[in-house]
Amino acid sequence: MVAQESTKGVEFYFDFSSPYGYLAAYRIDDIAAEFDRTVTWRPYLLGVAFKSSGQSPLVSQPMRGPYHLRDMERTARRMKVPIILPEGFPMATQAAGRAFYWLDAQDPAKARDLAKALYRAAFAQARNITPREVVADVAAEIGLDRDAVLAAIEDPVAKERLRAETEQAIARGIFGSPFFIIDGEPFWGNDRLDDVREWLKTGGW
Amino acid sequence: MVAQESTKGVEFYFDFSSPYGYLAAYRIDDIAAEFDRTVTWRPYLLGVAFKSSGQSPLVSQPMRGPYHLRDMERTARRMKVPIILPEGFPMATQAAGRAFYWLDAQDPAKARDLAKALYRAAFAQARNITPREVVADVAAEIGLDRDAVLAAIEDPVAKERLRAETEQAIARGIFGSPFFIIDGEPFWGNDRLDDVREWLKTGGW
Repeated sequence: MVAQESTKGVEFYFDFSSPYGYLAAYRIDDIAAEFDRTVTWRPYLLGVAFKSSGQSPLVSQPMRGPYHLRDMERTARRMKVPIILPEGFPMATQAAGRAFYWLDAQDPAKARDLAKALYRAAFAQARNITPREVVADVAAEIGLDRDAVLAAIEDPVAKERLRAETEQAIARGIFGSPFFIIDGEPFWGNDRLDDVREWLKTGGW
Repeated sequence: MVAQESTKGVEFYFDFSSPYGYLAAYRIDDIAAEFDRTVTWRPYLLGVAFKSSGQSPLVSQPMRGPYHLRDMERTARRMKVPIILPEGFPMATQAAGRAFYWLDAQDPAKARDLAKALYRAAFAQARNITPREVVADVAAEIGLDRDAVLAAIEDPVAKERLRAETEQAIARGIFGSPFFIIDGEPFWGNDRLDDVREWLKTGGW
């Protein structure tokens, strides 16, 4: 069970290899902004959570996998955004997560920009963002120093931060992507964004 | 992958032990009626599909189970309908399914009434609907002949119909409850009803 949090917050947990996380990333900031709230973006390693939840990557599951490929494409069409799975999907996302947290420690807004750029590289441009060189390329495309990003991905502090964030996510009962915690209340899935919006609007029901 | 169906139809697959199926049962007929469509109700045995999909009952899964208990209660509160899980949940639903199909062969509208009554017995009144006597009680409460229902539950034709419907559901790629097929397009989950409505309204996108 997700622990009740006494702190206020709009938290967005996701894995950079999650297509539904990519779709939610288009909308969550705008939804929060309607209620003058800002979002804390929290990438983590979903594969580690799978060890606790007993799950496996969705698209490789029998029956559920083919359905969800169709559903994510249909959801993207309704949103009028592109979606394509890169070769090598599902992707390892350690490099992306470390680069994010390195930047987040300096400038959370810029880290959010990097997250969006990485998601669009992966699922709009079909680039496999597992290699650190690709993460650094994407970072350079939004004006970051490529060599600094390459170094950050090997930085022990960034590695430890991603590990600790993943551990904390699992301890809070988070098992999927996207996963939102709105003033302590957990919501799993891109398909819960309407509930998230209503919760922000009403304070809960 | 769900087979493309050339036939037109609004099909509602569900298991009588599914809380999200219970919630969807409040809404699907009204949504279809907005577009002058009627719904074909199709109970099946989700536990048999789990053998093909590799899944297990949601509420007993680590992490996902506690979350979904919370989510189904929250969803019911938003809909302003009761929800409570009966003792013995998840329930075996062979008797309910056989009674449904026995009645469906004579009077589909009355069978739908029975389905709604069984769902509300289970999840609004917390009655475990596994025993055939309970199914017969619920049927009697909506004016059906109790002894005829008890006999129908043991009827080989009704047994075979439920078995065949379950087999056909799995062959069509159906793995959850509720699961809708709208003019050939598959939608899984109570949380897809907004998409279902939009699909009926627009003919697809």
